[in-house]
Amino acid sequence: MLDYLKTKAERDAFIDKYDNFLFDCDGVLWEGTHMFDGVPEAMELLRSKGKRVFFVTNNSTKSREAFLQKFKGFNVKATKEEVFSSAFATASYLKHVLKFPEDKKVYIIGMAGIKDELAAEGIRSCGGEEDTGLTDNDAVPDDKEVGAVVIGLDTQVNYKKYAKAFTYLTRNEGCHFIVTNEDSTYPQHGGFYPGAGSIAAPIITALGRRPDAVLGKPAPNMLEAIYAEYGLDPKKTVMIGDRLNTDIEFGLNGGLDTLCVLTGITTKDELLSPSNKVKSTYYMDSFGDFSNP
Amino acid sequence: MLDYLKTKAERDAFIDKYDNFLFDCDGVLWEGTHMFDGVPEAMELLRSKGKRVFFVTNNSTKSREAFLQKFKGFNVKATKEEVFSSAFATASYLKHVLKFPEDKKVYIIGMAGIKDELAAEGIRSCGGEEDTGLTDNDAVPDDKEVGAVVIGLDTQVNYKKYAKAFTYLTRNEGCHFIVTNEDSTYPQHGGFYPGAGSIAAPIITALGRRPDAVLGKPAPNMLEAIYAEYGLDPKKTVMIGDRLNTDIEFGLNGGLDTLCVLTGITTKDELLSPSNKVKSTYYMDSFGDFSNP
Repeated sequence: MLDYLKTKAERDAFIDKYDNFLFDCDGVLWEGTHMFDGVPEAMELLRSKGKRVFFVTNNSTKSREAFLQKFKGFNVKATKEEVFSSAFATASYLKHVLKFPEDKKVYIIGMAGIKDELAAEGIRSCGGEEDTGLTDNDAVPDDKEVGAVVIGLDTQVNYKKYAKAFTYLTRNEGCHFIVTNEDSTYPQHGGFYPGAGSIAAPIITALGRRPDAVLGKPAPNMLEAIYAEYGLDPKKTVMIGDRLNTDIEFGLNGGLDTLCVLTGITTKDELLSPSNKVKSTYYMDSFGDFSNP
Repeated sequence: MLDYLKTKAERDAFIDKYDNFLFDCDGVLWEGTHMFDGVPEAMELLRSKGKRVFFVTNNSTKSREAFLQKFKGFNVKATKEEVFSSAFATASYLKHVLKFPEDKKVYIIGMAGIKDELAAEGIRSCGGEEDTGLTDNDAVPDDKEVGAVVIGLDTQVNYKKYAKAFTYLTRNEGCHFIVTNEDSTYPQHGGFYPGAGSIAAPIITALGRRPDAVLGKPAPNMLEAIYAEYGLDPKKTVMIGDRLNTDIEFGLNGGLDTLCVLTGITTKDELLSPSNKVKSTYYMDSFGDFSNP
């Protein structure tokens, strides 16, 4: 455990050992609009060796289509089938697990990714990022069509959205409470901002109960979907991420080997601290180092 | 325990037993802009018998001056000295306990009450209700003058405010994290909306730690202030409220007898449920019933 991949020989042996590479994106491949050095070359190296790659991201703000545009902008190859986002997992969960009825709709606190993925599954929604301008303090009108509230990262969240979500969840019988992911923070602008788990916290506090479902890492839903779809061998699969309590725990929960990179949330001190209970199989400074000679 | 004050004789005996009556306001005297039937007459009855009354409210949205206006609008007598609000308690805590330095200021997520009470104590502040319109998604600029973040109920709260609060608390060394009160919900429009405790939850989640101080009920700060100021005898003092986990617990924590009224949050079923661990000394349907013949 906690093997440091320092030399080229160690890195080559790591690549040879696995067939399938699951990636977290933010903090591993890029931060915001900045791709880390060497990442395109390292991804190309994996593809040239016939490895399969999957992008497993808790970021619910973009649809899979929008993620592909982001990869394209960075000149990095990716296909829709390789992208598993918490927004996609949420839509899939509503459709396949909850059999969400056609006469109901979803109230969203969150951004375009959730709305777009719900629409792709034929699920109606309301709210979302554009549900702004409601700065008055009127009572929330009843809307009995709302059968689920989905909360993800929403940089336009406001009190009125919380008031609506809370009203639907307390007044609409059987209304499902779903959180895309529970990352407490979100890397941006070279720092950290409140993440989806923090955005959902007011409703958890006001209701006095946990969500009915949380889709993102470290919850096992996405891994089950990938397994089901592609029949991967866990022994030949490695999870690469920057967060111990999401990415690495997600891999560990699924019985995978894991690689923690230090380009994101986790510092070397935190990773190696005796008090850290979530230990990755390997760690390295940056995933881009795979492209080093 | 849980004596039901049903008859006039029982209500008269209750009034005769105490010299000092501490009141919660929302849900006891009024709901929003609606005063409950019989409340002005019942207050007048207490005053005519020479009783002392104090208003102990977790509502931080109004200053004590603004509370007086509210009482005046209802034609109910009250003086500034009788009002103890969580906003006043917060200002008092910053000034007297933390000795908040003059070269620092407070970032507020909250409404006018907090800002006004801080100003009354000579404490500079920024943010607050009017800190809106920040719907862009730029980085939060550093502001090293911010030495404390105070969070209370804010019906204009938005992501940018959370981003600012989190930035100051993580980047400004020694920055205090203070929550006016932790009511999870707030009665309004005949229903319930997220309260100050829910509004503060994203920052608690993002930081992964509790606030440095919580001022409102059931925390004992306000009771200590009232005791210190007026030297009340706890045996001759009763706390009247509608919430078990704030008002009644506040009274119990302070060794006071308590009266739970059923015009607010707590239902009779909840109060009398065997699973309820917070039992008031007395209960009655409405405080206004004291004015019944």
